[in-house]
Amino acid sequence: MLSAKLIAALQAIFPPERFYSDPADCYTYAYDNSRKIFPPDAVLFPLTSQEIQHTIALCNQYQTPLIPRGRGTGTAGGSLPEQGGIALSMERMLDIISIDPANRVIVTEPGVLNQSIQDATKPHGFFWPPDPSSASFSTVGGNIATGAGGPHAVKYGTAREHVLGLKAITGSGQHITTGCYTTKGVVGYDLTRLLIGSEGTLAVITEATLKLSALPILTAGVTAHFRDLSGCTAAIVNIMSLSQLPSALEFLDARSLDLIRGRYPEMLPKDTHAMLMIEVDGSHADIPDSICAIIKACQNNGLISAARTDDTASLWKARKALSPLLREIAPKKINEDVVVPVSSLPQFLDSVTQLSTQYKINNVNFGHAGNGNIHVNLLINPDDPDEVIRATRCLDEIFNLVIKLRGTLSGEHGIGSEKRAFVTKEIDFPTLDLMRGIKKVFDPANILNPGKLFPQN
Amino acid sequence: MLSAKLIAALQAIFPPERFYSDPADCYTYAYDNSRKIFPPDAVLFPLTSQEIQHTIALCNQYQTPLIPRGRGTGTAGGSLPEQGGIALSMERMLDIISIDPANRVIVTEPGVLNQSIQDATKPHGFFWPPDPSSASFSTVGGNIATGAGGPHAVKYGTAREHVLGLKAITGSGQHITTGCYTTKGVVGYDLTRLLIGSEGTLAVITEATLKLSALPILTAGVTAHFRDLSGCTAAIVNIMSLSQLPSALEFLDARSLDLIRGRYPEMLPKDTHAMLMIEVDGSHADIPDSICAIIKACQNNGLISAARTDDTASLWKARKALSPLLREIAPKKINEDVVVPVSSLPQFLDSVTQLSTQYKINNVNFGHAGNGNIHVNLLINPDDPDEVIRATRCLDEIFNLVIKLRGTLSGEHGIGSEKRAFVTKEIDFPTLDLMRGIKKVFDPANILNPGKLFPQN
Repeated sequence: MLSAKLIAALQAIFPPERFYSDPADCYTYAYDNSRKIFPPDAVLFPLTSQEIQHTIALCNQYQTPLIPRGRGTGTAGGSLPEQGGIALSMERMLDIISIDPANRVIVTEPGVLNQSIQDATKPHGFFWPPDPSSASFSTVGGNIATGAGGPHAVKYGTAREHVLGLKAITGSGQHITTGCYTTKGVVGYDLTRLLIGSEGTLAVITEATLKLSALPILTAGVTAHFRDLSGCTAAIVNIMSLSQLPSALEFLDARSLDLIRGRYPEMLPKDTHAMLMIEVDGSHADIPDSICAIIKACQNNGLISAARTDDTASLWKARKALSPLLREIAPKKINEDVVVPVSSLPQFLDSVTQLSTQYKINNVNFGHAGNGNIHVNLLINPDDPDEVIRATRCLDEIFNLVIKLRGTLSGEHGIGSEKRAFVTKEIDFPTLDLMRGIKKVFDPANILNPGKLFPQN
Repeated sequence: MLSAKLIAALQAIFPPERFYSDPADCYTYAYDNSRKIFPPDAVLFPLTSQEIQHTIALCNQYQTPLIPRGRGTGTAGGSLPEQGGIALSMERMLDIISIDPANRVIVTEPGVLNQSIQDATKPHGFFWPPDPSSASFSTVGGNIATGAGGPHAVKYGTAREHVLGLKAITGSGQHITTGCYTTKGVVGYDLTRLLIGSEGTLAVITEATLKLSALPILTAGVTAHFRDLSGCTAAIVNIMSLSQLPSALEFLDARSLDLIRGRYPEMLPKDTHAMLMIEVDGSHADIPDSICAIIKACQNNGLISAARTDDTASLWKARKALSPLLREIAPKKINEDVVVPVSSLPQFLDSVTQLSTQYKINNVNFGHAGNGNIHVNLLINPDDPDEVIRATRCLDEIFNLVIKLRGTLSGEHGIGSEKRAFVTKEIDFPTLDLMRGIKKVFDPANILNPGKLFPQN
């Protein structure tokens, strides 16, 4: 519960239509895509950085958690008000401040949707590469706070590579300006990258200077069907050793394909047990060579067919069909986004299959194979306590395997609250202590998104 | 002077051939490419991270500065032992730990030369993109500590984009591991980028996991001669608005060309008053289109000629001739590496010309125009006190102009000691305070490279 004095002070800043305290109103801001429920005590909708600065000062004064939030599309619980407090919804900071095609830069407020950035820059021949599957309804601020990526990260990288500078208010209420407006700059510590992926624990991003990339002239694709997993993973390793990187390299395993077949019997050949959707982009002159090299890289005993498709929408059809089906059959599935080195994918996927058999857990794997970033889905029923225990053990072994293979626990979803318990598998204590020290420098009273990202102890 | 106890403790760790304390030996480690002289009290040559950890513990105990150093090629004074203390020369940590072409990764100790990384990865079809002009004799550790870039940054970016993870010992003596071995990873704060460009003030880098890029299939170039500066800067803006970025876009102004003509009368046409060297890389199929687009982008009233050259060595001939000449005529010139948005280059270069006339300072400008990163050289004689005063005032106005145009004071050289006094022109106090706070978390006793990067007071 918020103190009456704090409420009064906030009312002096925010008009009623930008200050929710009715529990019914607040409930809409109680969840994200992790589907846990933690209602905030209030929701604020700031329009200016001054309002945010005042709010942070008050939260420090009244020791009240403040949880920045984009559109709540995160899957790791990063925007959940676990300890109550105030949800700071950035969704109304909607101005695109400037578009500067000559310098390939767009400056924007954090609440602007990723899709709106794409729409605004496309007429100038540009795009902003981070492409989480939520792109049409997630905010730029949220994308930056989580270090978002997506299928095209294999060629273009993630948010980390596409932000030049930020304005933000720290947990201590200081207005800071990081990075620069130019593509080069080495003055001072790189606070821009420090804020990218910090999940709202250090500062509230109030403005972002984004680096734009030229839209590809042409995009084409290859669909490759494999009789077995080993043929498919061998092809992934081959494709990633080509000099020209694909612009996407997505993988579906046998169980994913079975699910799709169950709903769309005609979509896939019967004997396909693993599938790749490979996209390349480039010039008219280059595409045929790239396609040719990719099809050649797919050749092995496990290959059924690999063929070019110029209709990239059809390329993604199977992949896009999958997520809603998974939701349907296992609404509370565990969805991980671990990463292993590409050359370890064969070993990793084999071992995950063995582990899911051993623990009797239905398991579906798909994802961004070009980065070694696999969405490992454990299709559990959370109301079956025995299954939950088996899944927990299975997951623990999967994480251990990931670390053993020199991988990372999260390629794009982040830690939030969902992966907090596992962070120490990857980050050693001195390094984690240093991160805690940095958190204290930015947010000495632990006001901003308290409890997130760090393991509890 | 080091305390006798500290010396004895260090002698217990380092054999005599890896511990210099004779002033004659130490003098070799007293300078970098800023050509200031600050002899260290001792020089250590560690071979292992354990030795570094012990050394840092001792430096904390005895309150003694420790200044990490690659090969001393930096131009900003970043590796100078200004306050005395111990120079920690990383030049003997020379192992390339692993080359992993399947995952496009090389793991290396910090003392390995940039050129050695190129030599080791070339047979596998890869290279490491950061390309400072010192590449053949500067270390990877130094490149990372300064966030090094070079002419190819316009397409490939700088060190920031090409390091996956680091091992390092902090100023408090903690061994930390940052980042990961994979191309995606969002677990914890981005300490990798925080260390990149931190100029040895936070931690000593002991191992680097570098991300490799595929060597271009083909490289070609265009040399463009212009009658006047305005034609040349208009061409730069046009070239940078093409969808296909050049792999290098280097600029020489009229005074640079005069200097070259003075030594090599036949190298350049007489009426060229500004020149561009443009490199593109790509496939055999792509290059002709790229060249064609670039030549078209150069067309304006100021253009004398723009022509393709496939001999990229000849492309760089004029540019490479310049630096030794500048050294010869003005060995103590002021060499800045400011950056402005590309679209502001015309205004910037015009204004710099006006300022150099106003302050009667010989001025030569050249550099990485594609990033807006211009090496502004003030050719002063430091023994002429009046000229020094005029140059100081001129430089101050140039920096103000850079900031006004939304640029940055350093694109690749860093702050070190040389630009320390100007940092507050670019970074506001709350942001700088935050950086100071981070420094304290890593290095509470201010042992590592004390006094660098931050303005004094």
